[in-house]
Amino acid sequence: MLESTIAGTGPLDESAMTAARHLQDRLTKPAGSLGALEDLSVRLAGLAGACPPPLPSPAAVAIFAGDHGVHAQRVTPWPQEVTAQMVGNFLAGGAVVNAFARQTGATVTVVDVGVATPLPHAEPDPADPAAGPGGAADTGVPRLVSAAVRRGTRDMTVTAALTRDEARAAVEVGIRTAEDLIDAGAGILLTGDMGIANTTPAAALIAAFTGVDAAEATGRGTGVDDQTYQHKIEVVRRALRRHHPDPADPLGVLAAVGGLEHAALTGLLLGAAARRVPVLLDGVIAVAAALAAVAFAPDAVGAMIAGHRSAEPGATVALRHLGLTPLVDLGLRLGEGTGALLALPVVTGAVRVLHEVATFDSAGVAEK
Amino acid sequence: MLESTIAGTGPLDESAMTAARHLQDRLTKPAGSLGALEDLSVRLAGLAGACPPPLPSPAAVAIFAGDHGVHAQRVTPWPQEVTAQMVGNFLAGGAVVNAFARQTGATVTVVDVGVATPLPHAEPDPADPAAGPGGAADTGVPRLVSAAVRRGTRDMTVTAALTRDEARAAVEVGIRTAEDLIDAGAGILLTGDMGIANTTPAAALIAAFTGVDAAEATGRGTGVDDQTYQHKIEVVRRALRRHHPDPADPLGVLAAVGGLEHAALTGLLLGAAARRVPVLLDGVIAVAAALAAVAFAPDAVGAMIAGHRSAEPGATVALRHLGLTPLVDLGLRLGEGTGALLALPVVTGAVRVLHEVATFDSAGVAEK
Repeated sequence: MLESTIAGTGPLDESAMTAARHLQDRLTKPAGSLGALEDLSVRLAGLAGACPPPLPSPAAVAIFAGDHGVHAQRVTPWPQEVTAQMVGNFLAGGAVVNAFARQTGATVTVVDVGVATPLPHAEPDPADPAAGPGGAADTGVPRLVSAAVRRGTRDMTVTAALTRDEARAAVEVGIRTAEDLIDAGAGILLTGDMGIANTTPAAALIAAFTGVDAAEATGRGTGVDDQTYQHKIEVVRRALRRHHPDPADPLGVLAAVGGLEHAALTGLLLGAAARRVPVLLDGVIAVAAALAAVAFAPDAVGAMIAGHRSAEPGATVALRHLGLTPLVDLGLRLGEGTGALLALPVVTGAVRVLHEVATFDSAGVAEK
Repeated sequence: MLESTIAGTGPLDESAMTAARHLQDRLTKPAGSLGALEDLSVRLAGLAGACPPPLPSPAAVAIFAGDHGVHAQRVTPWPQEVTAQMVGNFLAGGAVVNAFARQTGATVTVVDVGVATPLPHAEPDPADPAAGPGGAADTGVPRLVSAAVRRGTRDMTVTAALTRDEARAAVEVGIRTAEDLIDAGAGILLTGDMGIANTTPAAALIAAFTGVDAAEATGRGTGVDDQTYQHKIEVVRRALRRHHPDPADPLGVLAAVGGLEHAALTGLLLGAAARRVPVLLDGVIAVAAALAAVAFAPDAVGAMIAGHRSAEPGATVALRHLGLTPLVDLGLRLGEGTGALLALPVVTGAVRVLHEVATFDSAGVAEK
């Protein structure tokens, strides 16, 4: 399944991109005056092979949740149980990702790809008008998919985080998630993640795929103090020294120093690219997964839109390597898919322009 | 009316801001992880004097349209008639601002504060599902308000663009527009503008209020060539040399080197601030008007949110002077209110977090 998905990716359609560029120049606005939105609309035409490309709607957020053996190295002050507790919060509609999803009309699917502690029994909030049967399809009340590959990774400073088979299984959870969401009608996917300690494997992945030093790829995550930050860099460095991951072997890198949610996100990105559906990247976990996805299939980058610039320094390193410029930059470092959701209206706006704006001819507006 | 509006502005409410900061720290997310959105939510609580502040909804875009005597100096390749033609395009729903307003559910009000050429008879697009009677209130089909102070300004390189009385009348058009929109229920105002050549008076206003050189305040507007750009800087410099506008006399500055839409936007900002309703700034025309507004009433800045960073260099100069950081930065240089509309979901999201997100206690999530 991984191999056929990789084989299904391909380059952008040049003729649709040319048509979109010409259309942009005929619309009632100075040429180029929509800046980054014009480039984005052209790329989405190339991805869809059509001008205008379809509106990126409905939107579907996929939040992959997993735990991390490296948590034992005290890289974060948060207890591991918070991963499961936050999954409960997502399912009850109480997290920031839920508020943003309700605002944009996006659906939320939570995929347990390897949470270590038991999930709480989650009740939808009865005060939420979107709660109740049938709500999941179009109101942002989340759905839970149980697809745990194992109950958390192993400690990458001691042994490989995953076997190759486990890493592959997690990637394929992501591919299946993309296919299911697209089959259900999604016009754009958004990446989300939850996993206490997951910025540590993200930093290791970014260092492995880009070649930067651990110090450059590692950030403070949810906000660790100076001492923990220095220790976290050392943990990443130790894991890299132990495994010497080969960036030409992305499955090997994911197995050695990855996380289950990072691997699943890699699959989501590949699955979206193979179906030529755009996928909006959230923060540092997503861009680490994106590096793995382009190592599997370079053309997959054509489906990726960088939602925001995470406050994590590794995110900027990864975005540069991917050649992607984020749409918003608001100092967020929350994850969950929140940064991607904030950028969604920009993507929708970029495409709506091609569908709805009058041309100079049709509107009777003079050109310079 | 101008004086009473200025007297109605005041400082942010510190106790509501403290309450908002404390609430942010109890929500189920790492403290500070929403970056700029947290600061924005705190400020909006201070503006409203309540925590949480009201949702910024419904949103109302006010597009002020006017023409410019300085057009005779050939500062732009676009014919002056395009101002009126674009007003027709707005009323027909065919411009980019209309597409973005439909997407966000914002209303659009076009205020003719001084268009020089006759407005075309505009027909709503029958293919637009929002067109037709009753559409204006909630669907983005624009309403036209005829409030021309005069049919375009005078050429500021020859004489003052406006008399003081004309400048005051235009400011008061803006104040009345703010009051009307707020009385009709608007929870947030967005600035828009249309006026061929209006980046030239914007540059002069920015240079006058901030003290920077004409070259630093002047940009390429809708995209002039190198020769026209150098000439445009010289035109701004000549106007400033002729009038020596005094930044401590904002009405005098607006009269000498302003535009009717710049003056009206100044009034809109003052009117919103006096009613403690937030106002989302679009690009360089809006931030030039914002400089005039804070010269009238320094506390008015508390109601202003910088929507985006325009590609015009003068916008960055003005934002720095105002102490405002824009929410998005996408290289836009279109005006109309498009950059403000792209930022609107970020503002809404910032406030929704305070209304909807669970606390650690309520969600049963452990803290670090």
